[in-house]
Amino acid sequence: MAPPSNIDINNNGAPQNCGVLPPQCSQLLDPEEFRRQGHQVINFIADYYARMGDYPVHPSVNPGFLRGQLPADAPSRPEPDAFGAALQVVRDLILPGLTHWQSARHFAHFPASSSTVGALGEALTAGINVVPFTWAASPAATELEMVVVDWLGKALHLPDSLMFCGGGGGTLLGTTCEAILCALVAARDRKLADIGSRRIGDLVVYCSDQTHFAFRKAAHIAGIHRDNCREIPTCRDDMFALSPAELHAAMQADVDTGLVPLFLCATVGTTQTTAVDPIRELCTVAAAYGAWVHVDAAYAGSALVCPEFRHVIDGAEAVDSFSMNAHKWLLANNDCCALWVRKPSLLVAALGTEQELILKDAAAEGHDVVDYMDWSVTLTRRFRALKLWLVLRCYGVEGLRAHIRAHVRMAASFESMVKDDARFELTAPRQFALVCFRLRLPEKLRGEKVANELNRRLLEEVNASGSGPYMSSAKVGGVYMLRCAVGSTLTEERHVHEAWKVVQDRAASLLREIEITYCADAK
Amino acid sequence: MAPPSNIDINNNGAPQNCGVLPPQCSQLLDPEEFRRQGHQVINFIADYYARMGDYPVHPSVNPGFLRGQLPADAPSRPEPDAFGAALQVVRDLILPGLTHWQSARHFAHFPASSSTVGALGEALTAGINVVPFTWAASPAATELEMVVVDWLGKALHLPDSLMFCGGGGGTLLGTTCEAILCALVAARDRKLADIGSRRIGDLVVYCSDQTHFAFRKAAHIAGIHRDNCREIPTCRDDMFALSPAELHAAMQADVDTGLVPLFLCATVGTTQTTAVDPIRELCTVAAAYGAWVHVDAAYAGSALVCPEFRHVIDGAEAVDSFSMNAHKWLLANNDCCALWVRKPSLLVAALGTEQELILKDAAAEGHDVVDYMDWSVTLTRRFRALKLWLVLRCYGVEGLRAHIRAHVRMAASFESMVKDDARFELTAPRQFALVCFRLRLPEKLRGEKVANELNRRLLEEVNASGSGPYMSSAKVGGVYMLRCAVGSTLTEERHVHEAWKVVQDRAASLLREIEITYCADAK
Repeated sequence: MAPPSNIDINNNGAPQNCGVLPPQCSQLLDPEEFRRQGHQVINFIADYYARMGDYPVHPSVNPGFLRGQLPADAPSRPEPDAFGAALQVVRDLILPGLTHWQSARHFAHFPASSSTVGALGEALTAGINVVPFTWAASPAATELEMVVVDWLGKALHLPDSLMFCGGGGGTLLGTTCEAILCALVAARDRKLADIGSRRIGDLVVYCSDQTHFAFRKAAHIAGIHRDNCREIPTCRDDMFALSPAELHAAMQADVDTGLVPLFLCATVGTTQTTAVDPIRELCTVAAAYGAWVHVDAAYAGSALVCPEFRHVIDGAEAVDSFSMNAHKWLLANNDCCALWVRKPSLLVAALGTEQELILKDAAAEGHDVVDYMDWSVTLTRRFRALKLWLVLRCYGVEGLRAHIRAHVRMAASFESMVKDDARFELTAPRQFALVCFRLRLPEKLRGEKVANELNRRLLEEVNASGSGPYMSSAKVGGVYMLRCAVGSTLTEERHVHEAWKVVQDRAASLLREIEITYCADAK
Repeated sequence: MAPPSNIDINNNGAPQNCGVLPPQCSQLLDPEEFRRQGHQVINFIADYYARMGDYPVHPSVNPGFLRGQLPADAPSRPEPDAFGAALQVVRDLILPGLTHWQSARHFAHFPASSSTVGALGEALTAGINVVPFTWAASPAATELEMVVVDWLGKALHLPDSLMFCGGGGGTLLGTTCEAILCALVAARDRKLADIGSRRIGDLVVYCSDQTHFAFRKAAHIAGIHRDNCREIPTCRDDMFALSPAELHAAMQADVDTGLVPLFLCATVGTTQTTAVDPIRELCTVAAAYGAWVHVDAAYAGSALVCPEFRHVIDGAEAVDSFSMNAHKWLLANNDCCALWVRKPSLLVAALGTEQELILKDAAAEGHDVVDYMDWSVTLTRRFRALKLWLVLRCYGVEGLRAHIRAHVRMAASFESMVKDDARFELTAPRQFALVCFRLRLPEKLRGEKVANELNRRLLEEVNASGSGPYMSSAKVGGVYMLRCAVGSTLTEERHVHEAWKVVQDRAASLLREIEITYCADAK
């Protein structure tokens, strides 16, 4: 397309008089304007927290509900007090259309636990707005990240081998899929250096049928052939944990056909039921085949601040990499995924560059510094360390323990209530703060399919009660189940009791309905 | 490691009495506590902006300076008023160790332009803290993202084919490397579906020797063989743009040896000199070989809000994907990379899943909704649309144009001053708001190496003046040059003049020094 004929295409020929713009356009970063609007935002958020209980957790809206209400184009010029007007739209149109992850009644998925300090840490990071892609690009940001990943690793009882203080090291990324992808590319390059780079199609990766899709996604992105991802079946008797014997058999079978075991993704706290894979035994198997072991503790990693949970990563001294999401259950608002590796040099070899003169400067040469852009997919990065450092410093390790334990206690309460009601059953053992359960089929009915349909309806009705809880589901070993994940910062014991009451009520209605249908059919 | 013997490993057996924790640990998300600490943070940031001029842009610190001052472990319990104390540490230890990307005197790299609204949009997003990985997981967040990528696309004069309104679609990611990686995996999968998935080793990707390392990194991550990345040389006569004829020759040569052209990454505004690759002609070449064309407009994409720059993407109707960083020069604080694709179904086919029952719900089935986790590397994602929507709404397209044009005008001023001083030369044509220049060698000296060394020293001395500008360098075609990138929101005409004065002063000292040395040698 040619430039419009009435406009001079010479770069210097832009219209000199852009017309009179509202004052905010000449005050893009004015301290007093920032102060004025900033206090508005703080009050807006505080009011949102205060009114959280008034919102249904999940909105009852149809696709297109918001798109239809917004103009098709950005405004050419801002209206007067555009910021205030925009906040009004957020309050009136956007908030009512959100799923309120901070609601005390949000029991779905896994938590996205917020805290005052976590949210304000993000705000501070955004305000400072530095880009610490290399040490030189913002030295204190890189150094704080190095300090805080060791702080967090120690607080989680990780082995020293994964920390800077023990010869490894960590970094803060956005999400687990990124973390696994980085580890996988490092592992892949190391292996291909041994067997020849043309054999990428022979590499095989391993996980269980409970492993989060993020792993298969990462493996696919990294060029691992879709047929070469082994999802090893688990069973209820093993509490849905990956069996070392099965892993051994799978790896041996691949070796027997000329393939090359590359990578195991073990999970501590699976998404569906929080199953825990046996790290020590799996590492032994993987070591025999020269495979890299990554531990994905996205959710349950936070629980490791409590010594009573440390046993779930027994044997972690042998893993090559480990990741957890501090934004899930450790009060560091979204996003904050910590990745630790035993050999950072392998990450740098796979993801780093020495080529960009523009990005380096003298301070980075020959010193003990980390250029974090060489540790991750992204080059541009945010100063996430500030938020995590504030959270650790302002709540302390004991504060984080108290937070985790409160949720575990509430989940245990919910579990007891399920156990005490004969109409229900627990479908997976509770390990952290997730309870998986279902309504048993009444005696007159038979079949897994019918049971699944019953529970699907139960969840639908529980979630339909606007003022009640919001839960999600899992399907494991053919069994459909409801998931009650306690983890919202605002959740108190009473919310858990109220949630259970709603589940009971809806179940009673459903069972009555079945009874009526059954009697009608029987006539 | 076995659990400590004095602790009950039963999950329910956590110590019931955690001791008395400071009040903040039971007020993790208390609205009044948030209000109190929130106003502190807003004032902190406003004060930082007000005092920005007092900081040297780049700190004079040595590796380890901060690590050595912080304790090796997170505190067990927070001190009284831990938040206030932490802010004090940020003020006294961390800020002085940062590179101040928002300084009016920051002319290095590319800008990370901040605005009041961009920073507060991030704060609002962090406070609301939803996780819109699917439409159902926060409907309004997904819908706002769909609206705002079309708003931005139209504001940037992108072809309709890349927008939802024209059958394509966009998403907001973190960085360019992610955007390219997503496009590349989609392209790879489409191609492998045609030629057979075992031929990944035959795929070839193309770029110029000016293309940002992010592309080579993405290609490597995606399993493209390192030998199969063609970096086509550019030259000064072509203004460092990629030559369609050279691309044609490279693709044909690969086809002749049985390889398969896959992907071209064209750049609009290269990192080193803001060169612009000729999109229309490159698309014609790529189409003949069935290669996907991605345009990386990370920096210069923002300039497309001004119609006078639209010509730099002439022919973009034929591209398969396009990305730009609104966090670089469009006032949307870090991070905010917009990616548009012509065929979203190819992204979803490569990155999506239908397998995770837990992640879906009825609302997402069979409706016109987007589950953005299927469009990107990450599953967890932030509500970035809120920030970008606020920026577009509160500044308006005209406001953004005024912002871009002001920087272009200032860069033109700097360029004029360089031109007017016979001791200097421009080393690449200015296209946007970056000026590349160097000090000419005095007559008595000869050789590119000497010239490079002279300019390396010049940059070092310019940057060493604590109260002066901070610039970076490039090396293109063997020529080392200084880069002055105007783009900080706080930069005014006077900062550009002061910066030039410092460059002139330091150059004069250097030339005097050379003169003395030369005379001494000559004796």
